[in-house]
Formats: sequence, structure tokens, C-alpha cells
Amino acid sequence: MSTNANATKPAAAPAKAVKTAITPTRAMDYPEWYQQVIKAADLAENSAVRGCMVIKPWGYSLWENIQRGLDALFKATGHVNAYFPLFIPKSYIEKEAKHVEGFAKECAVVTHSRLEAGPDGRLIPAGPLEEPLIVRPTSETIIGATYARWVQSYRDLPILVNQWANVVRWEMRTRLFLRTAEFLWQEGHTVHATAGEALEETLRMLDVYADFAENQMAMPVHKGRKTPAERFPGAVDTFCIEALMQDKKALQAGTSHFLGQNFAKSCDIQFQDEAGQLQHAWTTSWGVSTRLIGGMIMTHADDDGLVVPPRIAPRHVVLLPIYRDETSRAQVLAYCETLRKEIAAQTYFGRSIEAHIDDRDLRGGEKTWGWVKKGIPLRVEIGPRDIVADTLSVARRDTGEKRPIPRAEFVATLPALLQAIQDNLLSRSKKFRDDNTRIVDTKEDFYAYFTPANRDKPEIHGGFAMAHWNGDAAVEERIKKDLNVTIRCVPLEGGEPGVCPFTGQPSKQRVIFAKSY
Amino acid sequence: MSTNANATKPAAAPAKAVKTAITPTRAMDYPEWYQQVIKAADLAENSAVRGCMVIKPWGYSLWENIQRGLDALFKATGHVNAYFPLFIPKSYIEKEAKHVEGFAKECAVVTHSRLEAGPDGRLIPAGPLEEPLIVRPTSETIIGATYARWVQSYRDLPILVNQWANVVRWEMRTRLFLRTAEFLWQEGHTVHATAGEALEETLRMLDVYADFAENQMAMPVHKGRKTPAERFPGAVDTFCIEALMQDKKALQAGTSHFLGQNFAKSCDIQFQDEAGQLQHAWTTSWGVSTRLIGGMIMTHADDDGLVVPPRIAPRHVVLLPIYRDETSRAQVLAYCETLRKEIAAQTYFGRSIEAHIDDRDLRGGEKTWGWVKKGIPLRVEIGPRDIVADTLSVARRDTGEKRPIPRAEFVATLPALLQAIQDNLLSRSKKFRDDNTRIVDTKEDFYAYFTPANRDKPEIHGGFAMAHWNGDAAVEERIKKDLNVTIRCVPLEGGEPGVCPFTGQPSKQRVIFAKSY
Repeated sequence: MSTNANATKPAAAPAKAVKTAITPTRAMDYPEWYQQVIKAADLAENSAVRGCMVIKPWGYSLWENIQRGLDALFKATGHVNAYFPLFIPKSYIEKEAKHVEGFAKECAVVTHSRLEAGPDGRLIPAGPLEEPLIVRPTSETIIGATYARWVQSYRDLPILVNQWANVVRWEMRTRLFLRTAEFLWQEGHTVHATAGEALEETLRMLDVYADFAENQMAMPVHKGRKTPAERFPGAVDTFCIEALMQDKKALQAGTSHFLGQNFAKSCDIQFQDEAGQLQHAWTTSWGVSTRLIGGMIMTHADDDGLVVPPRIAPRHVVLLPIYRDETSRAQVLAYCETLRKEIAAQTYFGRSIEAHIDDRDLRGGEKTWGWVKKGIPLRVEIGPRDIVADTLSVARRDTGEKRPIPRAEFVATLPALLQAIQDNLLSRSKKFRDDNTRIVDTKEDFYAYFTPANRDKPEIHGGFAMAHWNGDAAVEERIKKDLNVTIRCVPLEGGEPGVCPFTGQPSKQRVIFAKSY
Repeated sequence: MSTNANATKPAAAPAKAVKTAITPTRAMDYPEWYQQVIKAADLAENSAVRGCMVIKPWGYSLWENIQRGLDALFKATGHVNAYFPLFIPKSYIEKEAKHVEGFAKECAVVTHSRLEAGPDGRLIPAGPLEEPLIVRPTSETIIGATYARWVQSYRDLPILVNQWANVVRWEMRTRLFLRTAEFLWQEGHTVHATAGEALEETLRMLDVYADFAENQMAMPVHKGRKTPAERFPGAVDTFCIEALMQDKKALQAGTSHFLGQNFAKSCDIQFQDEAGQLQHAWTTSWGVSTRLIGGMIMTHADDDGLVVPPRIAPRHVVLLPIYRDETSRAQVLAYCETLRKEIAAQTYFGRSIEAHIDDRDLRGGEKTWGWVKKGIPLRVEIGPRDIVADTLSVARRDTGEKRPIPRAEFVATLPALLQAIQDNLLSRSKKFRDDNTRIVDTKEDFYAYFTPANRDKPEIHGGFAMAHWNGDAAVEERIKKDLNVTIRCVPLEGGEPGVCPFTGQPSKQRVIFAKSY
């Protein structure tokens, strides 16, 4: 994965370069590297509220682009957006037994409706609520209660609604983007007349997620079904997309749940069918979150910081003016502004290509490295000599390659260049995943594959293990206990039957094992 | 304001028409009419959580378009988006004395971090928090604490950040869109090196709000300064835009606050200036919310339901296919689909014009009236005879006018037609406001102007009263007590000095009085 270190360092400030690259590197301390990439790219930070993050402007723009991309795909598949209450009455969450078991353990509970001065003059909670409210950890129950009112007849179906919202899960160990007490996400909630339609919807949205991950985030994923042990609380079947991070751990990047009639029954969503019979409906839910940003970081970033795929980049190009005096300053800035407009007239993936002129009063090396760490796809340095030659010095973030390109050619070929970067990122991450995916046929090989001591032996150690499994939950639990490895998914494409290496019993197909976030 | 009643009723279903118009009318019972318009347009509904609404798809699309329009204006004025925590530690909200006084009385207080089975087996709050958390009613304090970390030097300024978020205020009396316990909004929070820059920002964003209200929502507003009694808790100066609803009550549609150094001091936002001196920064905040949708309803809707200005319409045109059998059905739908694509190739106000083909299996009248009540700008009925003539029957929602237009002409002139509707809505709402704005010079006239018994005498009764005021808070309070009338704002454009009719004392300029939401 690592790029040529020299190539990524602009000639302008080699001394500064060494100082500002990410420390520690991925190889030295991956979790700390992750935190430092986020810090160096100014994506997010922890707040004073335990587990709640502040998403800073550069990080939030990534989310805005993820939202835009997904929202278009949701609408293209017939969905509309709506908004449901932040609070869920305690009695609602209690309705579905497995659901409450899954979410009651860590949730923010609102018990009072005001603060008033206590005996010592300091504010204390007052106005106790008759029934406590839970800040939504997910909205099946409150949306289900709403749908029970909306659905009367088969003519009201299907309901295809998505919500963009914040949710809260009182996680004890948090990590920026990957696991936070509050996070932003979308949750689709649909209602159908038949099991078949609901299942079709569940899989359609899984495809949408996989399409988005691969074709917009350049993050290849496996699509599969979760084992019963890993199901969403209350679901009949949970499907997921699983990506492989650079530390060889899997990231569950999105889930799509076939809820059967479980929530329709607990929420009382019934409809009269064409024959006049009252039936419980079939529902689905599906979601991805700001966790995707964590996935993007751990898929593409390198030891010099973030690398952003062009299709979701907040800005595509940074123009870095270089000048010595006021005369050349005016000349260089005018040239940059003309260039910015020429670039904006070009489009890439349905968006006007955005070039940002960074005219901050900073040293050149510091400025350049700031943008390297932010992962902007292309950097262009522009000084008086470049203007005379009408040729730009263009640096690619993904490869570190830096080469002169005549201005007109650069502008004309910019969409192709961005696509080349997007393609390179995807093929690179696919190669990494494939290089770290192994067919494993014996228990010994399996244990060796996941033993930390073998980390530096890529020939026997890796990320995804494709192994047979007899379907027994006890085997799954044993492996989790021994190695902290779980079945990430049972691939949808199926596979040949074989023998489970853990039990010697027959297995229907290989499943994907990995350590995970 | 009322349009010709007959003209608004499609010839197709006159009997149905009478039944499905909004009951009661505005004249009969305005508050109830408002609720019925929302229900008939399927915009929103109350949820089981007291004061929290469900924003339904058609209502949420309006919000999406409002977001898109405002967001573009925010970005064009140099702002970026970010996201801050939902929760505010109690100690933060206590820091600014006036602020806590304004918000502690009605807020959702989180006191526990999980639910567990109590003695009777039912779930009870558990895991008490060391410090209660408030669900943000507004974010000055939590964002201020973040900015204190971000701001070190004058080089870090200005900070121009906006947040799109949900907020909660535990209102006792709620009304859909106008006043709900949870609502969606945006809150801009900026930091500046000087009072002058901060004040300039405050007024710039007020202009953005006024521009958006008038030019996108067709809702004319007065820009002005709030009196000290009406200021945002913690602000040095609050500016607002005020619109006039059809019941002659004012709606505060947006506010922009100059916060001086109040929050910079309580949150400790300090920076080193160019001379190396440590200074407190100057901050602003500004917001509009889903309340704008309430304003849109009460500005444009009529006794037949919602009327949506084309610039924020979820869809611009509905195509209503009419057919008797399967043969004509196929023919009509194919024609509609071709037309839909021709329309989509046209743009209006930067968006592709969206036509929706409503092929639901409903009676024609019911279907047509559904769209009238949803306020879609244009309805086009298409049957086999229309196809032969290649001429469409086009109905305008704003005027009720219905006329045949040759298809090619319709498609070519659609942007102009939508603009004509937008213009008509603005001139109509401006006329209404001007007709209900009066210069009032005596106390008697003032009291008559706001006496409910005079409601049907437009010559002496009205909405906005432009009257002199000596600046005395006691006078303001007296008027509020007597008439439930407040000073909506002190107009920014100023005016001639005069004499206060309530005290006989000198007045610097006329101020705007009204009853309000």
C-alpha cells in the first residue's frame, strides 16, 4: 500500500516534510496513526461531552458528499425522506423483546423537563416526566408506531422512507467516527405487503450500499448475511457490507435488515389486503453512518495523512500561489483566479470541479503539507515562472507523482485525471483486500492466520479468511473467545459445499472470518 | 387574497370539489384552518411524544429545498458547515447568566445512561450521570467551548461556521411547524476579531434571510432590531425578519444575534491580536427553522389548501393521465413519460423542472384535489383527446386559471410560467402586507387597530402598525398587557423622528407593532 516516500514529498520543503508526515506510521502504531490522521486532516475532535465528537468543516464536507451521493441513490430507487422524533417513549422500546435487550443497556434517558435552582442555588433537574424518554439509538419503534397510523390498506404500500438523523448509543469505549456516543446516519424504514417484496428491498439497499462504497468511496466490500449471533436485535435476517482496513481488520460499513413481521406485530402495522383480509405488514430497515468516514480513512490514508477519493472530495484541487513581492502576488493571484474559473467550468461525476486558491500567509512547505494531510486529490503550485511557461506543476495525492502539465491540457483532461485517481484508489484497495484474503482449510492454518505473533509473515497471516463452517453457534463462539475473530458474513454469492475444519462436519459454503472494528 | 372560487375548482369533479376544500375556511377559524391545511397536504402530524412532530415526505421535501436554498447562500457568503454535540453539560449552560435564565425553564434533561429491570421487572432509568446533560435548545455554549480551543491567534479568525441540526425546547403549547418541542433548524456561529466585523456579519446574515424569504419563499419581510425586552438571552443586539400572516399576526421568521463579547467571555474565546495582546473575541449567531414552513403556509395557502412557491416546490408539475381502457392507458402513459422527460430537460432556478406522473388508481376528482391541497404549482390533465390535439390543459394553483396550451409551447415557456407564479405569489403577499400596514399616530387609533371586535373593519383594523415610541420598556409592557401586541422590530431603514402617542415624549423613529406567533 505504501507509496514511494520521496515522491510524496514536495521538493519545496523537504526538511519540513519529515516533521509533518504522520507520526506514528501505520506500521508503528495503527490506532494512534488513525487518531493522528484525523487530527492532521482537521476532520473531527472529541468534545467535553463523553463520547460525542465535533465534526469539523473538512470532515463534515466529506459527510455532505456522502449524503449527497447516497441520497441520490435512495431517490433513484424510489425512496423519499421524512423526519421522526428524537425521543422514544420507554414503553415503545419495551415492545420488541430482543430489540430492548439490544439497546436498553446503553442509552441516554431523559427524565426531566427543566432545570431549577436547588437548595444551594445550583441548578438541578426538575419537572420529572411521567414516562422517561430514550434518545433514539435507532428508530424502528417510533417509526413503526407512526406507520401503524399510515398503513390501512394494501394501497398504502409500499412505504419507502428514509431519515437523515443523529442517534445516540451510550458506548463505553469510543473512537472518532468508528464508535461514538452520538453519530450521524441515515436509516431507511420500509413497509411491504409481502415477505418477498420486503426481502427484495433489503437486498436492493444492500446493493446500493455496496455500489456506493465501491464506486464512490473506492472501498471494495463483501456483501453477505450475518450469522444469527450477529443479527440486529429484532431482525429476522441482517445483511451487511464488510470492508478490509489496512490493519487487516474488517469494518462493517453498512447493514440492511429484513425485519419480517416482528416490528409490524409489536408496533401493530396491519393492512387490509386485496381480498379484504387484515394482515401484518413486512418491514425492513437499513443504515450507514459517519462510520463510513472512518472506513475511508483506514482504506486510503497513508503515512502522510488522509487520501480522499475524488468522487467524495470536498474540493478536488488546491491552487498554491507562490510569489515574492506584491507585483508578482497580484499577477499570480489573477492567474489562479482565471484558472479556478476554467476548472469550475469542467464537471466530474456530476459536480462542477472545485479548485480552492489557498492564499493564506503561511510558509510554502507548511501550506503544501497541510493539503497533503487533508488528502486533497490534486495540488498545483503556481509561481511567476509557471505563468510564463503556461505550464502547471501538478501533484497527485494518491501516487505522489508530480509533473508539469501545460495549462490548457490540464484543464481539458482534469475529469480524466480525477477518474484515474479514483480508479487507482479502488484498484489499490482491491489489491490490498485480495492480497489479504486467503482460503483456509485447516484449523491450524486458521489459528496461525489470526495469531498476532505472525503479523509480519504475510504468507501465513492475513485479514479475511474464507473458511468452511458447519453453522454451529458454539464453534463461532469458541473462535471468538480464542482469537477475537468473528464471522463477518456468509457471502451472498454462495459457494461450493465442503468440510468444516473445526468440526469435520459438512459445510454448505465458505464464510468470511476476520477480526473487526 | 382569495381567488375566484369557481376558477380553482377543476371542471372534472365539481361535486367532490366542495367536499374536499379545506374546512373550516380561513375566515371561519384560522387556527383550525391551519391544522387542516397541514393535514390535507400531508405535511406533518403530531407524534406520541408530546410536542414532537413527524415531518412527512411532502413536508420534508419543502425543508430539503429550504435547506438547499439557504445552504447555497451561506456558502456564497463564505460559511462552511460542521456538527457539534447534541448534549450540553449542565455546567456549560450555567455559564452565561441571561442565557440559562432563558433556556433552563424548558429543556430536556438527560440524567441516566441506561435502562434496567426494576424490582417489578419493568425497565427503570439506571446508570445515573455525574453531571446531567441538556439536549441542546441552541448551541452557543457548547460551540463556544469548542471555539475556545480553535481560536488562539488573529490568524484563526474569522470562524464562519453553520450547523444543520435538531434542537429541543420543552414548550408547553405546541403547534405544528410554528412551535414544537423538537424542531429542525440551522444555527450559524461566527467569531471575529472586532466588534465591527461581528456586527457586519450579523447584518449580512439578516440580509441573507430576508433575501431568501422574499426571493425564494415569496414571503416579504421587514428587517429590524428587537427591543431589549425581546432580545435573545445573552445577546447584545438581536435582529430579525418579520412577516405578516393572513390572520394579520406577525411571524418572526429568522433572527441574527450580535453577541458582543458575552459568550466569548463566558466560554473563554480569546485570541492574540497582531500586536501580541490577548483579547476576547466577538461572536454572532443566527438561525432559521422549520418554522419557515409554517410561515409559507400562512402566507400563501388558501381555502383550498397549500400553495407552494415554485422555487421551493418539491415538484413543479403533476401530470394527471386520464384514460378509459388499457389501450388508451398505454398511449396516455407513454405520452406523459415523453412529456416528463422534455420537462426535465428544462431548468428553473437552477433545478431541473420536475414533473410527476400520478398514475394511482384513484378517481380523477379525488386525485386532482389531492394535488390542489398539496399546493403543486401546475397541474396538467392528459387524456386521448389532448394527445390528438397535442395541447395540454394546464391549471395554475396560484390563480386557479386553467387553459389549453400547445405542448411544445408549454414545455418551452415552462420556466417563464413558473416565474410568473413565483412573481404573482410575492406581489400578492406584498399587497396583503401593505394593505394591512398602517401608520398610526394616536393612542385611540392604535387601540382600535388591534381590537378584535374591529376585525371586520379593515379601514380601522389591521396587522402591522407603524407607530412612534419613546423607547420606554414600561410603555411596551403596558401595550403587551392591554392588547397582546408587541414591538416586532425597530426597522433598520430608520425614519423621521416624531412624538410617541403613548407618552407624548419624543421618538427617534417609528417602530413596528403587531400581534404575533
